[in-house]
Amino acid sequence: MDNVVFQTQLHNGVLNTHNTCNSSEIKRRQPPSLRIRALDAAQPFDYETRLSEQFEQSTKLKIAIIGFGNFGQFLAKAFVRQGHTVLATSRQNYSSTAESLGVSFYSDPHDLCEQHPDIILISTAILSFEKVLKSLPIQRLRRNTLFIDVLSVKEFPKKVFLETLPNHFDILCTHPMFGPESGKHSWKDLPFVYDKVRIGSEESRQIRVEKFLNIFKKEGCRMEEMSCADHDMDAAGSQFMTHTVGRVLEKMHLATTPINTKGYETLLNLVENTSSDSFDLYYGLFMYNKNALEQLERLDLAFQSLKMELFGHLHKKLRKQMFGDEGEEVRRPVLLQLPRNGAALPAPSSDIGETSTN
Amino acid sequence: MDNVVFQTQLHNGVLNTHNTCNSSEIKRRQPPSLRIRALDAAQPFDYETRLSEQFEQSTKLKIAIIGFGNFGQFLAKAFVRQGHTVLATSRQNYSSTAESLGVSFYSDPHDLCEQHPDIILISTAILSFEKVLKSLPIQRLRRNTLFIDVLSVKEFPKKVFLETLPNHFDILCTHPMFGPESGKHSWKDLPFVYDKVRIGSEESRQIRVEKFLNIFKKEGCRMEEMSCADHDMDAAGSQFMTHTVGRVLEKMHLATTPINTKGYETLLNLVENTSSDSFDLYYGLFMYNKNALEQLERLDLAFQSLKMELFGHLHKKLRKQMFGDEGEEVRRPVLLQLPRNGAALPAPSSDIGETSTN
Repeated sequence: MDNVVFQTQLHNGVLNTHNTCNSSEIKRRQPPSLRIRALDAAQPFDYETRLSEQFEQSTKLKIAIIGFGNFGQFLAKAFVRQGHTVLATSRQNYSSTAESLGVSFYSDPHDLCEQHPDIILISTAILSFEKVLKSLPIQRLRRNTLFIDVLSVKEFPKKVFLETLPNHFDILCTHPMFGPESGKHSWKDLPFVYDKVRIGSEESRQIRVEKFLNIFKKEGCRMEEMSCADHDMDAAGSQFMTHTVGRVLEKMHLATTPINTKGYETLLNLVENTSSDSFDLYYGLFMYNKNALEQLERLDLAFQSLKMELFGHLHKKLRKQMFGDEGEEVRRPVLLQLPRNGAALPAPSSDIGETSTN
Repeated sequence: MDNVVFQTQLHNGVLNTHNTCNSSEIKRRQPPSLRIRALDAAQPFDYETRLSEQFEQSTKLKIAIIGFGNFGQFLAKAFVRQGHTVLATSRQNYSSTAESLGVSFYSDPHDLCEQHPDIILISTAILSFEKVLKSLPIQRLRRNTLFIDVLSVKEFPKKVFLETLPNHFDILCTHPMFGPESGKHSWKDLPFVYDKVRIGSEESRQIRVEKFLNIFKKEGCRMEEMSCADHDMDAAGSQFMTHTVGRVLEKMHLATTPINTKGYETLLNLVENTSSDSFDLYYGLFMYNKNALEQLERLDLAFQSLKMELFGHLHKKLRKQMFGDEGEEVRRPVLLQLPRNGAALPAPSSDIGETSTN
């Protein structure tokens, strides 16, 4: 059975004649004023051209993007630029956007699946992921299709993929840690996290996943292979925390002043960068990463602890004024440790009982 | 009376023979192995050299720095580099550091004041400012001395200066918004805030304050003249807030991860930059700026509001599961306004009742 799949994969170049159809369709839609300018252009009937085309096709992927919003389009551009065939479907009708990007848009996911893409890349919001996956007519796909997600949380899609997809499908969980804003000019050195959750042992399947990863390698991404669990642990402490601080500060309506320090300007930039993301993304980072709640609690405790340092200082000063040295408090350690997390909060950076008064 | 002061000021070049004494003293302390290498160097007896020296002196200031810690030394370097005569005193004995910087150190403030500096620049911690100022033997100074502070809060030193100093002293309150870290390589475009709190109308006094400000202009600072009250209002929202966020995050012991986003790296930098400052400075920003408490409260409220958005979202989802659509909450505006401040907190960025579930 698997052998048959393998054979099919090998003949990928030939099977991909769908694309030729699509591109000639696109050509037919072009304005009639287009004239042939190069009479000696290689003809598709040439034997040589045919061969090089087949070779090219064998290194190229047919990638179907499910969910063609901002992020899906952003990825599609790079895929097309690198010569891959890109298909897309979405709840909304993005056919004209797709056409302008060189992507074939299908309003009906059944039609898309019948095109037998090598890869189904799901690029929806975290909150829609499960529903979208479960609504796909996966019975129309070839059994060796590779499923990929690009969500900002990783344990959740891994679990849903494993629960939903029959064993014959491959699974790659990824998190390109950048977007249309931060990756506008280049993807150089931006982190691309991935976990090969389930990749069949056949060579064709192994090669296919490498071809996909190569797209990001070629763009200069910093490739980070790590487990979904490790990703979620690190991301809660870093990405979720960054969004949280950005959103708290956004609520404060920080204004630019004539006397901005460099530190303050980094805060203003942070607000600008995080406020462009949706609340749904933020809620997704919180709700679909089991480590996020604990990080939120740690932030809360750290803030309480800082306030206690400040107010404890005041309290002590005033008691000293009222009662002299006898009014001095017993030194009280301020929140040395967090209840559930192994990592301790540090002791307050200044000794509450010792700051000199001169 | 004032006329006499003016005359004295005009003869500054001649009166400043103290400096010549000091520099010859320093020369005497140099190792005996020093040899004269340029026989044709201009001699101090030359008439021409004498003249140009007098001219030079008339544009140079004699600046006494009270409190010769990190920040005082940092400023002294620039003053010396620009050719001014710098004196210093401090609780600690910094005489060897001073010598290496070309600064004359006086352990006894009486001796320093008897040198009749043009400027007394107080560079202590906020918490020590009042005590240090009140301990200075100001009766030994010329009556037209200019007092300058460089604290990170401004209404407080202004008030103490006005309460403590007789009318014949000039007062300039300044805040160089950078330090040995951020101004290590250059002061270009870094903000220098000042308020001419009390400058006598005589030309010599007017010229002197401009000469001092020129030091920072020459280094490329962004000169911002603003009232002490305006400074404290802006600084509480920007500088104090930056320090607070940096200190809260420092308590969380943020770790670098293989998947740092750019935003997260700005947070890590912020922690690094603010943690090098003392708790005393932070406490000073809090205690000696009347606007700081309100900003702390705003931060607290903004954080509470964000948590309510997150948890409110959960609450609604669960009620919907439990009671169907009838369980839907009345939409509750989350903390639209702060109690005391004119500026409103923004409404939550997402409508709590509306996020789609697909």
